Amino acid sequence: MDYFKASLQLHEELKGKIGTYNKIDIKSLADLSMAYSPGVAQPCLAIAESPANVYKYTGKGNLVAVISDGSAVLGLGNIGALAAIPVMEGKAMLFKKFAGLDSVPICLDTQDTEEIIKTIRHIAPVFGAINLEDIAAPRCFEIEEALQDLGIPVFHDDQHGTAVVVLAGLLNAAKVVGKKMEDLRVVINGAGAAGTAIAKLLKCIGAGKDDICYSVKDVIMCDSTEVIHRERTNLNESKHELLEFTNLENRHGKLHDVLEGADVFIGVSKAGLLHADDIRMMAKDPIIFALANPTPEIFPEEAFEGGAAVVATGRSDYPNQVNNVLCFPGIFKGALEAGATSISFAMQLAAAHAIADCVEVPGRDLIIPSPLDLNVAKNVAAAVKLTALKSMPEAV
Amino acid sequence: MDYFKASLQLHEELKGKIGTYNKIDIKSLADLSMAYSPGVAQPCLAIAESPANVYKYTGKGNLVAVISDGSAVLGLGNIGALAAIPVMEGKAMLFKKFAGLDSVPICLDTQDTEEIIKTIRHIAPVFGAINLEDIAAPRCFEIEEALQDLGIPVFHDDQHGTAVVVLAGLLNAAKVVGKKMEDLRVVINGAGAAGTAIAKLLKCIGAGKDDICYSVKDVIMCDSTEVIHRERTNLNESKHELLEFTNLENRHGKLHDVLEGADVFIGVSKAGLLHADDIRMMAKDPIIFALANPTPEIFPEEAFEGGAAVVATGRSDYPNQVNNVLCFPGIFKGALEAGATSISFAMQLAAAHAIADCVEVPGRDLIIPSPLDLNVAKNVAAAVKLTALKSMPEAV
Repeated sequence: MDYFKASLQLHEELKGKIGTYNKIDIKSLADLSMAYSPGVAQPCLAIAESPANVYKYTGKGNLVAVISDGSAVLGLGNIGALAAIPVMEGKAMLFKKFAGLDSVPICLDTQDTEEIIKTIRHIAPVFGAINLEDIAAPRCFEIEEALQDLGIPVFHDDQHGTAVVVLAGLLNAAKVVGKKMEDLRVVINGAGAAGTAIAKLLKCIGAGKDDICYSVKDVIMCDSTEVIHRERTNLNESKHELLEFTNLENRHGKLHDVLEGADVFIGVSKAGLLHADDIRMMAKDPIIFALANPTPEIFPEEAFEGGAAVVATGRSDYPNQVNNVLCFPGIFKGALEAGATSISFAMQLAAAHAIADCVEVPGRDLIIPSPLDLNVAKNVAAAVKLTALKSMPEAV
Repeated sequence: MDYFKASLQLHEELKGKIGTYNKIDIKSLADLSMAYSPGVAQPCLAIAESPANVYKYTGKGNLVAVISDGSAVLGLGNIGALAAIPVMEGKAMLFKKFAGLDSVPICLDTQDTEEIIKTIRHIAPVFGAINLEDIAAPRCFEIEEALQDLGIPVFHDDQHGTAVVVLAGLLNAAKVVGKKMEDLRVVINGAGAAGTAIAKLLKCIGAGKDDICYSVKDVIMCDSTEVIHRERTNLNESKHELLEFTNLENRHGKLHDVLEGADVFIGVSKAGLLHADDIRMMAKDPIIFALANPTPEIFPEEAFEGGAAVVATGRSDYPNQVNNVLCFPGIFKGALEAGATSISFAMQLAAAHAIADCVEVPGRDLIIPSPLDLNVAKNVAAAVKLTALKSMPEAV
């Protein structure tokens, strides 16, 4: 089936994949007077008196904004706000389908970091949470960090959503090959938004003292030129920070040099970088996450030929699809139900374990549940909510 | 029935009067691949190539933002962004109910004019039109004017929506009393957003040379202190501009002084200002629009006692309710269907005549159709669309 042609036709037929609906009909003047003027004054006054009432009388607690500046859309790059709309509408659909959350796409006609931060602050009142989406690194880091005081969860899914699903998959893959998380040596190719977040989650960077988090042994990051090491002079701030907890032996060289002896390869980079011979250099039973989309760093067939024990990709036509939809609907749902003001490290960890646990008996072709499994979001939401409430003793 | 208590209960049950829905279900990986990644790349690329395609492949052309800064909400005043949400949700419901338009409430956490303008520019890409709502004067004038170059209609409903419905009612009221529009002497009490827009529409200020517009003879404006005349030194810029076309004889005094001999009183001010004796001073068969809500400047019973021929209010429990819902759903629908980039004077005029024409035989208790009449929005949309297309010869 040609998804591309069919998708274009579908989009033209629908003219927008989501719509709004009224929860009650307006059939009489009494209906009108209750839903709108003059009756609506009453909930307005109740909220003016006590702002927390906004969750009692409006849709805020169930409404997620999916916000992009169109600067890093899918694999398409900086295509701008208008062209990003179909993706954000799609994401809004998934929030509804998998978590029952209302969701509105917002595409910003600015790519200035400070303007984006201010705009999101200005429009925040109606939203219960903000999903940042397809914003280029390192801008995405700054925006997310700056907005952590907003009073509602602000979560860049391309970073943390991907990291959570990769961790879930790795937990199960390690079981399959009989290795411990603490022993794994991991090579990540791609030091953008996703790669950086994966490295941090695998190394438990950001974990609280009570979080039960098993750090892998070492992570070595590569960007498009070479290994990120301490002698490099061309690193931006976020890559510098990576050196605080990656590449403990300060190895130099190219991707291929550090693959030797590695237990895990995680690619969030580009098509066709690896071949069977590269996999042969890795430690016994290597685990491969080849997440470049639509064409992975190495196709599963070739990875298995090189001796891979487990292979995950971003594709729906192979087993073990790393798809963010396994994470973001449930993690937002859990955060909103708990009334959390952010999505903490502990909540991300809880989400990863909940996703991993949805696979009863992990196997080579089953380390990650199906993106269509409706139980995943439910389980993730429950685990995330519980974790969030634990950190708010007064709310339990 | 106690609308206030019932409304509070309803809002608590619903937790948000509107929601979002998915136009197609996602049941298979094929569905997921078409609505989201990777298939969604195709409409994205088509829009990146030609921005006009955004109307072909997304919901932009059917999506209205209802935007408020919470500074002038109903009769409640400056209650802020959070407390304004129930009103904006209600307005969004009415867009859906009466015109089938999708609509999203946006409440802004800033009341700075320049910040509001910038924020609206930044979030505009996903929206087909912007309904400004409950923003205090004179800020609302500046914001609306500054955004006329946005490429999509930006319309402050509290100004023009009210003016359109008042004009519609006045057209029919003049027929009922057998007077010509050109002969009417009108007194407007209240020189804020609504009063100013009414004055301009009744005096055909902003009409193009081809617009068939019958100006009333004179409009005299009063603000909360006295008549707006040329010797006053305490007028802001927008009140100064009013003197370019109002109070032709430059009369001085209080509201009561200028009511003498007037044909029409339009109150957009506050409760209980007028009494039967005031109406007795007016010309024969006076027409009264007492629009203060919920308590009008004078109740219909007392106005009739003073000799009023026709009385309109903002209330649903009296005949002739001036309700913006008669205007905004249809005018936005017509503008969006035509692909108009603004809502011109001619389109507002067309809307007023379409509303007036929905009353087949005007009478004392029937100068304005019922706000529940679903035909009104249809007729308004058709008339507005036609008018818009006439001004875009290439589009016909």
